[in-house]
Amino acid sequence: MPHDCSFVSELLPADRVSFADADREEHAADWWAGEVGLGVVPDVVVWPTSTEEVAAVIRAANDHDVPVTPWAAGTSVEGNAVPEFEGITMDLTRMDAILDVRPDDFQVDVEPGVIGSAVNEAVADHGLVFPSMPSSADLSTIGGMIANDASGQQTVKYGEVGDWVLGLEVVTGEGEIMTCGSRAVKSSSGYNLVDLMVGSEGTLGVVTRATLRLDGIPEQQRGGRAVFADLDDASEAIYDAVRSGVDVAKIELIDALSARMANAHLDTGLPDAPMIFVEFHADHGIDEEVAFCRTIFEAHDVVEFEVGDGASAAELWEIRDELGFAVQAYDPDLTPMHPGDVTVPISEYPPLVRYAKELGEEHDLLVPTFGHAGDGNLHYTAMVDQSDDAMVERGERVYEAVVERALEVGGTCTGEHGIGMGKQGFLEREHGAVAVEQMRRIKQAFDPNDVLNPGKLFPETAEGGRVRFAER
Amino acid sequence: MPHDCSFVSELLPADRVSFADADREEHAADWWAGEVGLGVVPDVVVWPTSTEEVAAVIRAANDHDVPVTPWAAGTSVEGNAVPEFEGITMDLTRMDAILDVRPDDFQVDVEPGVIGSAVNEAVADHGLVFPSMPSSADLSTIGGMIANDASGQQTVKYGEVGDWVLGLEVVTGEGEIMTCGSRAVKSSSGYNLVDLMVGSEGTLGVVTRATLRLDGIPEQQRGGRAVFADLDDASEAIYDAVRSGVDVAKIELIDALSARMANAHLDTGLPDAPMIFVEFHADHGIDEEVAFCRTIFEAHDVVEFEVGDGASAAELWEIRDELGFAVQAYDPDLTPMHPGDVTVPISEYPPLVRYAKELGEEHDLLVPTFGHAGDGNLHYTAMVDQSDDAMVERGERVYEAVVERALEVGGTCTGEHGIGMGKQGFLEREHGAVAVEQMRRIKQAFDPNDVLNPGKLFPETAEGGRVRFAER
Repeated sequence: MPHDCSFVSELLPADRVSFADADREEHAADWWAGEVGLGVVPDVVVWPTSTEEVAAVIRAANDHDVPVTPWAAGTSVEGNAVPEFEGITMDLTRMDAILDVRPDDFQVDVEPGVIGSAVNEAVADHGLVFPSMPSSADLSTIGGMIANDASGQQTVKYGEVGDWVLGLEVVTGEGEIMTCGSRAVKSSSGYNLVDLMVGSEGTLGVVTRATLRLDGIPEQQRGGRAVFADLDDASEAIYDAVRSGVDVAKIELIDALSARMANAHLDTGLPDAPMIFVEFHADHGIDEEVAFCRTIFEAHDVVEFEVGDGASAAELWEIRDELGFAVQAYDPDLTPMHPGDVTVPISEYPPLVRYAKELGEEHDLLVPTFGHAGDGNLHYTAMVDQSDDAMVERGERVYEAVVERALEVGGTCTGEHGIGMGKQGFLEREHGAVAVEQMRRIKQAFDPNDVLNPGKLFPETAEGGRVRFAER
Repeated sequence: MPHDCSFVSELLPADRVSFADADREEHAADWWAGEVGLGVVPDVVVWPTSTEEVAAVIRAANDHDVPVTPWAAGTSVEGNAVPEFEGITMDLTRMDAILDVRPDDFQVDVEPGVIGSAVNEAVADHGLVFPSMPSSADLSTIGGMIANDASGQQTVKYGEVGDWVLGLEVVTGEGEIMTCGSRAVKSSSGYNLVDLMVGSEGTLGVVTRATLRLDGIPEQQRGGRAVFADLDDASEAIYDAVRSGVDVAKIELIDALSARMANAHLDTGLPDAPMIFVEFHADHGIDEEVAFCRTIFEAHDVVEFEVGDGASAAELWEIRDELGFAVQAYDPDLTPMHPGDVTVPISEYPPLVRYAKELGEEHDLLVPTFGHAGDGNLHYTAMVDQSDDAMVERGERVYEAVVERALEVGGTCTGEHGIGMGKQGFLEREHGAVAVEQMRRIKQAFDPNDVLNPGKLFPETAEGGRVRFAER
């Protein structure tokens, strides 16, 4: 139901408030929700440029009982930043300053709307890098990455985005300005509010400033591609490399179907076979590490394993970064369903890949699988014709079966894309009722009037935010 | 004020309940609080052996409005596990099982009372290690380390204890059994309750099971000692090594006074000079890394830098592990005041060390300084005669001035020992009123009746738990 949001015009100048259809519609779809028609168009879009403006809008939204949905690049895939109940969409992309680089402390302070790759450009001259970002780092913002606890290809070596966040300034659901964390690299002072805000998907607060830790750019880089005859060989090779302690900076599985999709979309000429893309970072002895990896791949009947320096492998990573688009573009009649991920302990990774393929065959659907395999992270999707109800139903079954299997073996229903709208049905199955009740209480503690991104993350219940706004 | 705790005898067998003075007094002092007379003797000590027993005791404590203070090894230094309001002390040391080692996933499940070094013994045969533990790992429990978000010598390379915790089973303040996290190495599913529980000092819940991530034992180790003519040279050398990206696994500062204290207590024959103890871990190229470190130390006029293999350096780490005891034992008339730590950005570390020394001179007190310098972590204490009020007052001034300086330069009032009773006065100064209010709401969400470790962490206020129980 639309809300009267005219009050925002009193808070921000006219050029940073828009009631225009084009602006509103641009903020009604992320990389997935638009495709399948989830979410609604906000009543108004605002572009704050300061913490005080963010706070003023949220305070007024409390006064007027209007939802506020934080928005950054719109590159999420679970509808995380798409409103469910109209109201105000708060676009943070004009708060994109790099505020302070402190190279001697390996730290940088940024505003939330800065693009990930822009951070790396700003610190590269100091020999530094923000090492853990999603494949969409050229498009996604640091604020969005923090809100989702994003991760990516280098998480296998460097951890999640959240592992590199030292401090935050946040506006809470009541419009209070809160600081948490510090510039110290470790602390045991009070509750860890930083890691609570990280991954909270804009439901607890809006990040307005972040202090990020950086790493040194490694002296040596090697990268390459290993081709296997069989998907099982490839996934087992990854498992064996990880459990043997091979120090990889990236290790990605690409199945033959994904390779065909990349070839069709990008004209890449990849072999029609399962592959591993791999990268190594080190300051010393990188060739020994590559050789160690090779012995393991050979034990799994690798057909071909070509490794070059970092530059020669750059093309592989461009392909990998584009893979999601290639899947989407593969067949105009087929839409990828729920293009999220699950993550499992590495020992469960090869059987899970196998299971996803078997489900595809059983339900006669294309199911491309790829992902940050070294983390036990599987991206998969069933390709369906949205006009074919029976096919959509089969796709749903494939989708759910993989998530359920991931939970059965101790994994998580989402390794890096958050719950948003898409994964709400699995939250309680993963964490149990007590944990979800505690999460609801935390939501209440930070956003007592449920104005921040209502309807997200928590499953729909009589008490849930979704129903509250739906009934208004 | 004592509480009627007779109800616990209905919940646990007689041999795991004690009202005896000796048992109660044993649980009334950690490594510091007893020394200075903080805290009180609990009314009863209980030793649960299962999650269900932990839950039953906490539920009954809610019914009877009696405090429960979780206790493990008693190796904290801020009074974190010492009761302030009598009641039940819950000793978790009989829940010390190693439940499941999963070497292929680099994971182990443990009960909270297991000693840190016992975990490493159990996984060493698999070539694995739990890499980040405090110097007290031979005595401290995993549950205590998690409660405090402990860290230690290897944090400079491997992060805090909390960085290696994947999942927890926790009994909340209402006696509900909650699971959080998973066996996946990454997740963005719901709020991060694991990192909220880590470092919450037993005020939100009692950890009853933990899934820990492990690391591979490095192929190569080197360790050694660098002696400097001047404390400034030593602290600047550490700063320079860290900002230059030297890959150290440990890098500890020991000032000349601490060295003398070690010699007096341990007969160690250390030179009467400031020193750096350093260790390197790598799979390849460790000698190049040592050489890189040497060039930096030489630029800071190192007098002597001897490096050997891991075994030859083991003695140094034994000295380092005992340093806290050496300080305590140095002079029977002098007590170390508030033997905690602060942590600052590494660029602020050399001036902070200098400042601590200047304060000691200004107030005519012995102020040994040491610590996990690579993290910007400074352990310092003023040595005072507790019967000399003026001296105690001067010691307090030194203590507070260092914490205040740490906060002024963006650091934290406690890097690894928590807030407990000792650091409550700094919580709001570090985090601000909004963050502390949110922490209070989180406490309310997990422990609405304030039975878990009441009086800790939050500063005393009319609404605070401390006053609530004091008024009963």
